[in-house]
Amino acid sequence: MTLHPLDQNDVLAAKKAAFQIPEGVIYLDGNSLGVLPKHVPDRLQEVVTREWGTSLIKSWNDHSWIDLPQRVGDRIGRLIGADKGSVVACDSTSVNVFKVLAAALSLRPDRKVILSDNGNFPTDLYVAQGLQALLDKGHELKIVAPEDVEAALNEDVAVMMLTQVDYRSGRVHDMAGLTQLAHDKGALAIWDLAHSAGAIPVNLSGAGADFAVGCGYKYLNGGPGAPAFLYVAPHLQEEVASPLAGWMGHEAPFAFDLDYRPVTGVSRMTVGTPAILSLSSLHAALDVFEDVDMNDIRQKSVSLSEVFIQEVERQCPQLELGSPRDPQARGSQVSFRFDDGYAVVQALIAEGVIGDFRAPDIMRFGFTPLYLSHKDVVDAAAILADILATRRWDKPEFKTRAKVT
Amino acid sequence: MTLHPLDQNDVLAAKKAAFQIPEGVIYLDGNSLGVLPKHVPDRLQEVVTREWGTSLIKSWNDHSWIDLPQRVGDRIGRLIGADKGSVVACDSTSVNVFKVLAAALSLRPDRKVILSDNGNFPTDLYVAQGLQALLDKGHELKIVAPEDVEAALNEDVAVMMLTQVDYRSGRVHDMAGLTQLAHDKGALAIWDLAHSAGAIPVNLSGAGADFAVGCGYKYLNGGPGAPAFLYVAPHLQEEVASPLAGWMGHEAPFAFDLDYRPVTGVSRMTVGTPAILSLSSLHAALDVFEDVDMNDIRQKSVSLSEVFIQEVERQCPQLELGSPRDPQARGSQVSFRFDDGYAVVQALIAEGVIGDFRAPDIMRFGFTPLYLSHKDVVDAAAILADILATRRWDKPEFKTRAKVT
Repeated sequence: MTLHPLDQNDVLAAKKAAFQIPEGVIYLDGNSLGVLPKHVPDRLQEVVTREWGTSLIKSWNDHSWIDLPQRVGDRIGRLIGADKGSVVACDSTSVNVFKVLAAALSLRPDRKVILSDNGNFPTDLYVAQGLQALLDKGHELKIVAPEDVEAALNEDVAVMMLTQVDYRSGRVHDMAGLTQLAHDKGALAIWDLAHSAGAIPVNLSGAGADFAVGCGYKYLNGGPGAPAFLYVAPHLQEEVASPLAGWMGHEAPFAFDLDYRPVTGVSRMTVGTPAILSLSSLHAALDVFEDVDMNDIRQKSVSLSEVFIQEVERQCPQLELGSPRDPQARGSQVSFRFDDGYAVVQALIAEGVIGDFRAPDIMRFGFTPLYLSHKDVVDAAAILADILATRRWDKPEFKTRAKVT
Repeated sequence: MTLHPLDQNDVLAAKKAAFQIPEGVIYLDGNSLGVLPKHVPDRLQEVVTREWGTSLIKSWNDHSWIDLPQRVGDRIGRLIGADKGSVVACDSTSVNVFKVLAAALSLRPDRKVILSDNGNFPTDLYVAQGLQALLDKGHELKIVAPEDVEAALNEDVAVMMLTQVDYRSGRVHDMAGLTQLAHDKGALAIWDLAHSAGAIPVNLSGAGADFAVGCGYKYLNGGPGAPAFLYVAPHLQEEVASPLAGWMGHEAPFAFDLDYRPVTGVSRMTVGTPAILSLSSLHAALDVFEDVDMNDIRQKSVSLSEVFIQEVERQCPQLELGSPRDPQARGSQVSFRFDDGYAVVQALIAEGVIGDFRAPDIMRFGFTPLYLSHKDVVDAAAILADILATRRWDKPEFKTRAKVT
């Protein structure tokens, strides 16, 4: 096997060995579900058989289960430019969106507009719609095109709520710039980092973001449905209340008082008993990032995606690039549009190249520099080209939509 | 080893072998964290290495991850008298309380009282307080003594929200009777089954309960922080909206529409991506219940707790029973009150008898008929008596409060 020239000086090359990549698979879907880090099964087994099985209830103290949301939060915080003690890992991204959106609206009681864009992941918008209906106070969810967010920022806007990296196109918003513009108008900024955390360098603190949420199971490799995370800027932590006031966010959960009193800090945004098994998997998965510089990840991500675009465009003229051409305007994923994209993606999967499809016509490929090489992406492009050239996608079995796409 | 006479005809005796009980431990804390079923580690390992590690993203379809909340829900439903398709396993109990309470209030828009009692688990009350503050519509959380609930039911009450089995005393509410009284006044009934599910026979459907929630990590043995469950009565499922409108509750989550449209049935109460690892552990743990009749569990539970009370009262006159004396009025736990209860519980734990403590003076012992014998409870009572007689609890190391009690 000859090395691709760009793989020769890859400072992250050794990291691939930390992951269990199935034989014969080129996995371009780490933006949907990250690959299993090899040490996670043993670690989880230890949590199950030793901590749960043997120490049982004592593990809440002896194995610090009780602090796991904060410990995982701090590990993630390091990757997204958050101060220590500003991030907790808990619940799902959707539930966390609810918490930060309700908290943000309560800080701007005289304003009624929640501004978002149509590149936001739909669940964020659904959560906003649900909250709107629940509050029944005349809030308006204003959904504009991503490029129109800036113009839509005005003094009616209570909260600007955006996903930094578009889940389909990979388009990146200017977090610092838009946050500043929102603040200039007196609005608060919520950032969803689902496709950012572990994928690109993020500096929440530097950008002045007020709130953020994100996902543990994509680029952070925490496992299917891994707990999400939530950030509250330090200066807001004592001001905000969680709409989901649960015992884990109480000042003294084991006093069993009848009255809720929020604990100091971001921990007040935790709610119920943490899902220790899923959270332990995420905690262990983050080991892989401990000695990694997000700038190295970014550099390789750009290189991988540039090579992929170049190879696909050279060999597949029938495909249309669905992502920004400027790598600085993209996250760590690339989309190509094709009417029969669903079938093409199924054909690719059948041949070991795993990407995914997003309606109506988007073939989506994620680039995870920790476990992909340039050779991988060149090979993937070649297989894609061959499938298109031979129309191997044009089979009934590739056209039947599965429940989860 | 001689069998205790009552262990000789124990129809559940063989079940103990299904659990990993640590050597030298008598575990009377299954009401706080259930013991590890022996087959769970292998099953979880399979989910991690084969489903996540090898099938990766395809497992959402190929291993039906996407239906796991419903599949686990139906298994739990069988234990609590819920129709198929009425229960989902998701999120934490606290988050689920929020969902059903908000949904219930929306069905009684002209009423302002949430009625609960001071035997409710505090997080349920905290959630109600948080929702009250969020809605800001003049709702009143009325907290009465458990015996005063009936008298407090009137036509101002929108929702009666109770935990069936008191987490400290084990006192059981009459679910069918109180639900009927609530309905007579036009109120809805929410039942928290945290200390009921898997502990006592429950018949949600027969009792006419409107909503219920409960816990996966206590008597159901799902593992630390296992996902909780949520029940909506069939006739209400199409009427209610979830205040946490997330993509998993959408009619077509993978259409990625910008507008929320709830799916039919109880699944609309799911929110974000399910925590597959924690949920898989709970799913596997429920295997143990597949061939079990809840009436057998109840019969043995009463027998265990009666023997325990008898043995403790005979040997420990300094302790005061903190639970109803009538076994029909108790769940599957027994409490004794003692001023230095915290230290006594720590001394017990040091000698392998694991119970827990609840402020201010409650020593709490849970009875889990699947993995406890009468000999276990007789031995536990003898050790307790000996610790009291010798004052072995009276040591500084037993008086320092841990973070989690």
